[in-house]
Amino acid sequence: MKKQELDTPFVLIDLDRTERNIAAMQAIADAAGVALRPHAKTHKLPVLAHKQLQAGAVGLTVAKLGEAEVLAEGGIRDLFIAYPIVGRQKIERLIRLSKQVNVTTAVDSWESASAIAQAAAEAGTTIGALVEIDCGFGRVGLPPDDAALALAERIAQLPGIELRGVSTFGGHSYGAEEEGSLRRIGEEEGSCAVEIAKRMAELGIPAVTVSCGSTPSARYAAGVSGVTEIRPGTYIFGDLMQVAIGSHALEHCALTVKVTVVSRPEAHRAVIDAGTKLFTSDGADSPIGTGRGYAVNRPGITVAWLTEEHGMLELDEAEQDRLKIGDTLEIVPVHCCAVMNMVDEVAAVRGDQVEAIWQVQGRGKSR
Amino acid sequence: MKKQELDTPFVLIDLDRTERNIAAMQAIADAAGVALRPHAKTHKLPVLAHKQLQAGAVGLTVAKLGEAEVLAEGGIRDLFIAYPIVGRQKIERLIRLSKQVNVTTAVDSWESASAIAQAAAEAGTTIGALVEIDCGFGRVGLPPDDAALALAERIAQLPGIELRGVSTFGGHSYGAEEEGSLRRIGEEEGSCAVEIAKRMAELGIPAVTVSCGSTPSARYAAGVSGVTEIRPGTYIFGDLMQVAIGSHALEHCALTVKVTVVSRPEAHRAVIDAGTKLFTSDGADSPIGTGRGYAVNRPGITVAWLTEEHGMLELDEAEQDRLKIGDTLEIVPVHCCAVMNMVDEVAAVRGDQVEAIWQVQGRGKSR
Repeated sequence: MKKQELDTPFVLIDLDRTERNIAAMQAIADAAGVALRPHAKTHKLPVLAHKQLQAGAVGLTVAKLGEAEVLAEGGIRDLFIAYPIVGRQKIERLIRLSKQVNVTTAVDSWESASAIAQAAAEAGTTIGALVEIDCGFGRVGLPPDDAALALAERIAQLPGIELRGVSTFGGHSYGAEEEGSLRRIGEEEGSCAVEIAKRMAELGIPAVTVSCGSTPSARYAAGVSGVTEIRPGTYIFGDLMQVAIGSHALEHCALTVKVTVVSRPEAHRAVIDAGTKLFTSDGADSPIGTGRGYAVNRPGITVAWLTEEHGMLELDEAEQDRLKIGDTLEIVPVHCCAVMNMVDEVAAVRGDQVEAIWQVQGRGKSR
Repeated sequence: MKKQELDTPFVLIDLDRTERNIAAMQAIADAAGVALRPHAKTHKLPVLAHKQLQAGAVGLTVAKLGEAEVLAEGGIRDLFIAYPIVGRQKIERLIRLSKQVNVTTAVDSWESASAIAQAAAEAGTTIGALVEIDCGFGRVGLPPDDAALALAERIAQLPGIELRGVSTFGGHSYGAEEEGSLRRIGEEEGSCAVEIAKRMAELGIPAVTVSCGSTPSARYAAGVSGVTEIRPGTYIFGDLMQVAIGSHALEHCALTVKVTVVSRPEAHRAVIDAGTKLFTSDGADSPIGTGRGYAVNRPGITVAWLTEEHGMLELDEAEQDRLKIGDTLEIVPVHCCAVMNMVDEVAAVRGDQVEAIWQVQGRGKSR
């Protein structure tokens, strides 16, 4: 099947670009001598996780247990859950998962760690853990100070948990306005994690893994001596948010939404058949002056605003004469991870050829 | 099962409040002597569509064909597709649907109308249509002038299409800042549609249906003489966006997201296990000073910001002592329709009792 035959809206994954992006981030990790453990929240697909492993990744990262379960079912054998696991039902699932695959989880509280440890000990198993610290984003993770070390010491003594190191996530890299500040955030992310790892080692807790995240900051964190692993996700597709930060080139963006023009109410306006239910409201407008998306090869089109099922286009003079009802466009979204979460299936394309329709097995796995 | 036993995040639909909201809007329509045709994009559930019909609604409204198909399969027999149908594949589905249920579609272009007419005539069927006009929102629909009437005249002569009237949507009511301007928008919406309907009648095209939309504007549009139908959707649950506009009371909001506190990195901060993948990034902050959501009965909690899987709470002094890891909260979202589109299932609750787990059959139906 050709992509021209797909009804719209349909999410397209360009395989050549995806494979290029996988190879490029692997090359960055290899050059820095760190492991790459991609975050699967971007693609949510075992088939792409396997491509990342084949290129050299050591395992995958997920946020939620439900995503981990989907990847485990899809044959992925090494997973890091970069999220605090809280509550009896989730801990039971974690224990079950740990019997199928090698699983490590982030911990940032005694409540979570002690409950996991107790359940694991009772089940006769051991769960790997990294202490999550906050390198400045202000989300989860303890501040990188004595409290984090005190938690690490307590956790290290628990049966049922094997404390393996430190993890952090420099999510504030998304706010970086130029490469210098991006580099600084990435390097601080790395050195912050390395510093805690060193102090853990002094306390007799070997930190085998020192893991940093974020597509924009990963290449800089990877260069910090002592960092052992990076966990970028978005790099596999790229989107306008990454283009804005300077961490992805527009011509390497691999995910687009194929849409159809369904209304031409005025000469300077058109409406496409996808709105926030495809593109989401995530992120700010495109940094390249094209609004809520970028229409591939159509610089005269601005994706001006969105409602749930409608995308409103503003047209320059050339497009006013050119764009007709029934025409299709491909739009690069502002935030690709969010788009993957809106759809049940995507088309994997190479050139014009649809190689596969993939069910987005990890979609909506919020638990 | 009690709702306390549901793992999180989980979307809860309070049935008592939902039934109250259904009855209240039906009473508004009845008092104005207009038909109520609720927009199903809010709930996406045949079971709630049936409740709306039992209360007196004449049929349902949808945006996309996929939603119409789900409702038809669920036993709904009268549907208005408030969306331009464009393209061979969709028109084929429309024709099939028209053989199962009574279906009417909005049209705002000759391209769409003539293609539908040709396919319907070839299939030996007739598709009902309303001419969509733009009463000021600037989305789909022709401006309410001679061009709209000229289109209506051309469509009225097509075999395979039965032109039944006019539809419009006063979506700019969402920008109304006080009740006076809301009333004005609703009344203009109604009179704009009625005016076109009158001019159609003068041309010999009887406009049996004069249909207006939008939860905030519906009660005002309904009061305009000549309007025959309103199509509000969000009223069934309500959300902070509606509370901000003044069209829904906070205590009548029927949809909440049950969440768990998973991290307490600092005294004044907590993190819950739901972010934009549940709440979406739709809409502005809560009008009542509680940020990206409202924590039911917990005024000391502000939902400060969201990432995909995390919700960051700011806590006042009382909550700093009270809120613990593992605690659950119920959060009223900013935009309920968008939340329903993020999840595969919701819990229908009455008091603490879970009466049913509903699969959100109309979720993600963007085609």
